[in-house]
Formats: sequence, structure tokens, C-alpha cells
Amino acid sequence: MSSELRQDPLAGTWVLVCEERARRPQGSGTKICPFCPGNEKMTPPTILALPQNAEGPTWQVRVTANKFNVLATEPPLERVGVGVYLKESGVGAHEVIIEHPHEDHRHPADLEKEEWTQILAAMRLRMADLVGDKRFKYPVLFKNHGESAGASIAHPHWQLVVLPIVPRRVETALDACQAHHEKTKCCLVCRIINDELASGERVVWEGKRFAAWSYYASRFPYELILAPKPAYHRHRFEQHIASAELADELASAFIEVLGRLRRTTNGADFNVMLFTAPWFENDIRPSHGATIEHDFHWHFRITPRLTKLAGFEFGSGFYINQKTPEAAAEELREG
Amino acid sequence: MSSELRQDPLAGTWVLVCEERARRPQGSGTKICPFCPGNEKMTPPTILALPQNAEGPTWQVRVTANKFNVLATEPPLERVGVGVYLKESGVGAHEVIIEHPHEDHRHPADLEKEEWTQILAAMRLRMADLVGDKRFKYPVLFKNHGESAGASIAHPHWQLVVLPIVPRRVETALDACQAHHEKTKCCLVCRIINDELASGERVVWEGKRFAAWSYYASRFPYELILAPKPAYHRHRFEQHIASAELADELASAFIEVLGRLRRTTNGADFNVMLFTAPWFENDIRPSHGATIEHDFHWHFRITPRLTKLAGFEFGSGFYINQKTPEAAAEELREG
Repeated sequence: MSSELRQDPLAGTWVLVCEERARRPQGSGTKICPFCPGNEKMTPPTILALPQNAEGPTWQVRVTANKFNVLATEPPLERVGVGVYLKESGVGAHEVIIEHPHEDHRHPADLEKEEWTQILAAMRLRMADLVGDKRFKYPVLFKNHGESAGASIAHPHWQLVVLPIVPRRVETALDACQAHHEKTKCCLVCRIINDELASGERVVWEGKRFAAWSYYASRFPYELILAPKPAYHRHRFEQHIASAELADELASAFIEVLGRLRRTTNGADFNVMLFTAPWFENDIRPSHGATIEHDFHWHFRITPRLTKLAGFEFGSGFYINQKTPEAAAEELREG
Repeated sequence: MSSELRQDPLAGTWVLVCEERARRPQGSGTKICPFCPGNEKMTPPTILALPQNAEGPTWQVRVTANKFNVLATEPPLERVGVGVYLKESGVGAHEVIIEHPHEDHRHPADLEKEEWTQILAAMRLRMADLVGDKRFKYPVLFKNHGESAGASIAHPHWQLVVLPIVPRRVETALDACQAHHEKTKCCLVCRIINDELASGERVVWEGKRFAAWSYYASRFPYELILAPKPAYHRHRFEQHIASAELADELASAFIEVLGRLRRTTNGADFNVMLFTAPWFENDIRPSHGATIEHDFHWHFRITPRLTKLAGFEFGSGFYINQKTPEAAAEELREG
């Protein structure tokens, strides 16, 4: 398998051209679940199993390489120009974090808090391991729940794709945060959270250390942000979550918020995406020569998939949201 | 109905918050088709019917306001800051171009060339009318074919949404084109087309004035670009297509290319999106103070919907394409 990263000369964004994935299974069907305990041979070898003394199928969380990986760790990182085009070898990592061993494919809102803290520990440990590879620049950590959210295996799992390029949308967020910090000496996301908690209009859930709210510019109905509150500002998820107190509350927050979302949307499929600081050396952004530790504020975005993307979204980059975030928050608070 | 444009403070992009659309019909069902001739009363009044002497249900192409419009022409254009947030009133136009009167909901590849030139004329006439409104900055012209491409009515139609804001992705393309033109005195898209036609590797179809090819950085399998060739460079679609010769060949090109796409993808649903120059006054880009007529090259992007977007795409902005554009072009040439 080899894959290639190609830059869109008009959009500036990148596409991963990767034929291997066409072979991956479609739909859940009636086949044997490759992620259930006892079926470990159906996937590549275990990279990490928790608790750490787990042997064979007694694991609670298991990490393996994605069998249909979009990036490979082997090839050297090369960038080549061909006429006006730019391409790179598809170097990176692509791992699967199997959330739990339950054969009933339990919804993540129905897990125990201790199961969630194990999932968070697995994320943290894998990111801490991969960050050492200097070729790796950005960890895309996400979850597809359900077929219309893009899941090809029903057993709940997260995926971690580590890219050799910082995505433009992360660079754009960094630009916005740095501009705001230069002007106000305050983190933009801290400011947003303070404003949201003060008005309360879009708040869905608030704990001591975390808050969840309907994003002002939600692209989809019931879209949510889950983030540490300003007193707990931090730019890198994997460092922050090493705190047991933080991990403990984040576990509760996920159970609470995903439960509300499931009840309010009648169990709609959804995606969860982490946005965290890129893996710059010493946290210094090369284009700015300055640290990003005050500028970026890690957060999760939770996106139910109730509407389809169409030509309007692809042609304009604008999204149409049929539900005001204020009305969505009200329903989610009551849900 | 009122809608609101909200800027995402982290991404810089805009979301149209519009509750009205939740009421629009889902799926094609067995109901009466509102776009078939004789049922004109089911939609808002006719804005334009072609041929221009068509009376009642004898039209070949009919344009009406979208019953579930996302933008309204009435409210004054206002931009308001609320804390760190920015919003605008949802001012614009949202029209539907019904492609043909056939009750069999004929596929656009099965239309006669003369029917296609009428569709192109309707696009041109509506854009030429709307461009006069100084509040309008960018025409999003697109087509959703099939339910998984976002169509809620099966009768083939295009939609024209005119926005009061130039989308970021169009600004980004303008940046790339202007930078290339400053450096080389050549249009970036002309350069791309010249390179593609010289190598032939990704070319799917070539006429005298137009060419269609698999885009180097295709985000989806079998994605295509259809554009005027360098000798026919032009920045604005609606002005260019007023030439009968151009419209005539573009009509043939659509029939040819959509036919190949249908055969190769086994009739997959698809979107078509126009990318054209924004409606700047005298074609001068305000941020640059220079004309964009040499910098932008209008084109259509045709995107079959064979794969689902998931957390990876939403979390990174990267797309995964399972089919190399070179292999896609080969199949489409043979198809």
C-alpha cells in the first residue's frame, strides 16, 4: 500500500490519494466483529492494551494499526513539485482505538466513567508515543458513530491519524487565536467560553473544569463544543489529560453530553473530532517564531449527522443549519 | 422566514442559520411532482420561462424562487458584532432552475443539445438580472442529482443562491491565481489545462473550446473539472456563455461528460458546482485594487457522491480519495 498527499492548487488544501481503502468492508452485515475480544487475529497486532497488565482478550481498551490505513510509517517524507502541482509521500500513522470489549457494541454514553478514563488514557499514551517522530505534525483524533457518520465497523472505536502536514483549518484557527491574543492578551476560546457561560443561552452542560455548548456558528443542527473552562486553559490535549482529575471529569462530561445528544436527536449518527495544538517543536510556530501555548485551546467538536452535504456546501464552503444553536441548546438542556 | 449569516470565529467561514428549511419535503415519495408542467401553482410564481414566448405549461425551462429559500431579498444588509461574534442578515436570492418539462424526470445526459442551451440561457439571464443588486457578491450555481447528493425533489433542477459575501474558498482561489499571474503573467487554470492536455493522463474529453479532466487533487473518486480551454479564457461564466458558439459546445460537453460519468459510476448521485469570478464592481478586487479578469478562470466541478464524509474530513479538512485521478480518467475515457 502506498498513498500520496496532493495539494489542491486552487484551494490550498490537501487530498490523500489512497487506493487501499477501497477494499475495506462496507456496512456492518452479519459478519464476525473484528473488534470484539477473541477476534484479535482479524486485525493487525495490538499496539497498546489497557489495563496494561491485560493479557489476550481481557483488555478493556485495545489499540491496533488500521488494517486499511491511509498513511504508512515506512516511506521517507518527500515533497515533490510536478509543474504547478505539489505532492508528498503519504507518511504518518493510522491507528484504531477500540473503546470497550462489550459484544453488545454498547453506546459510548452507556459506558462507566472508569471505562471512559481508560479510553482517554489510551489516546494520551498513543499520542505521547507518536509525538516523538519529527515527521509527524498533527494528530487527527476522531470518532465515526454509525454508518451515515462514515463508520464501516459497528463496534465503537476512535481513529487516530497523524499527518505530516498541519491542516489549513488548524492554521486558520491559530491565526484567529494569535490575532485575538495579540490584541487582548486573552485566548479567543477562553473569551468565547466566558461569554457563553455568562449568557447561558447556548450552554448545554457545565462542570467544574469543563463546559459543553452549542457553537454559535454550528454547521449542523445540535453541533456541540466540549472544552476545558478558562481556568483550565491548555493548548495540547494529550499533555493536559494526563491529570487524573481532568480525565475523570472529561469522562463524565462525555457520558453526559453524548447521552443528551442521543435522546434529543433520537439516536442520530454522529462524529466527534478533537482540535488540539499542532506538534511544533517546543510549541514554537515556525511561521511566527512564537509559542502557541496561550493561543490555542484544545476542544472536541461533536457533530450529529442529520443533514446531507450538497452542492451548495461544496460550491461555497457555507453551511446551511436548519436549527438555531439557541433552540438546539434548549432542547439539549432539557433532553 | 428570516435567516442569519454567522461567521465561525475560529474557521473564518460562514454558516447560514435558517429554520425555514426544516419544513421542506424529504425524499421523492409518491407525491405529485411540483416541478412537472401543469403543477406550476405548487411553487412560487414563474420568474423566467424559456423559450420566452412560452405560455403556461408549454415552457422548456422554468425558473422560480425556492419555496424553502435560505436567503430573502427584502431585509436590509446589516453586519453586527456581538462580543467576538459577527453576523449579517441573510440577504440574497435563492432560485430554482427546472431543467426540462419531461414527466419521466429524464437524466440530464439524455437531453437534446438544444434543451441544454436553454438551461444555460436561463442561468445566464438570471445571473445577468441579479448582478445589478449591489448587495449581491457571489452566485453559487449548483445541481444536486439524487438523494445522497442532497436533492429533495427528483425532477432535475439547478439552484442559484446569490450570497452577500464572497466565500473564503473563492477568495483563496483568487489569491492562488493572482499570485501565479503576478509571477508568470499566465492564468493558473490556463496553465493547469495546458499541462493536462499536453500529458493527456487525466483528460476525459476534449472539444474545440472546452475540456474535461480528472482533477489532480480530486477529493472524491471520478471528480471532474469542465472548463473553457486557454484560448477561451474568461473570468465570468454568465458573460462568456452569452456567446452562442460557446453555449452550444458547453451543452454538448455536459451531455458527453455526464453520460460517461453515469456509465462509469453505475448512475451514482452527483453534484455539479460552478466556480466563477465574484461580482466585484468593474471586476476590481477591493483588497487588491486590481482587475481579476486575467486571474480567474470559470469552471464547473462535477462530484459523484460515492463515499461518505466522516470525522477525518471534518476534523482535518483533508479528504481521502480511494481512486487515483489517473485511473478514474482512464475509466471515464473508456466509459
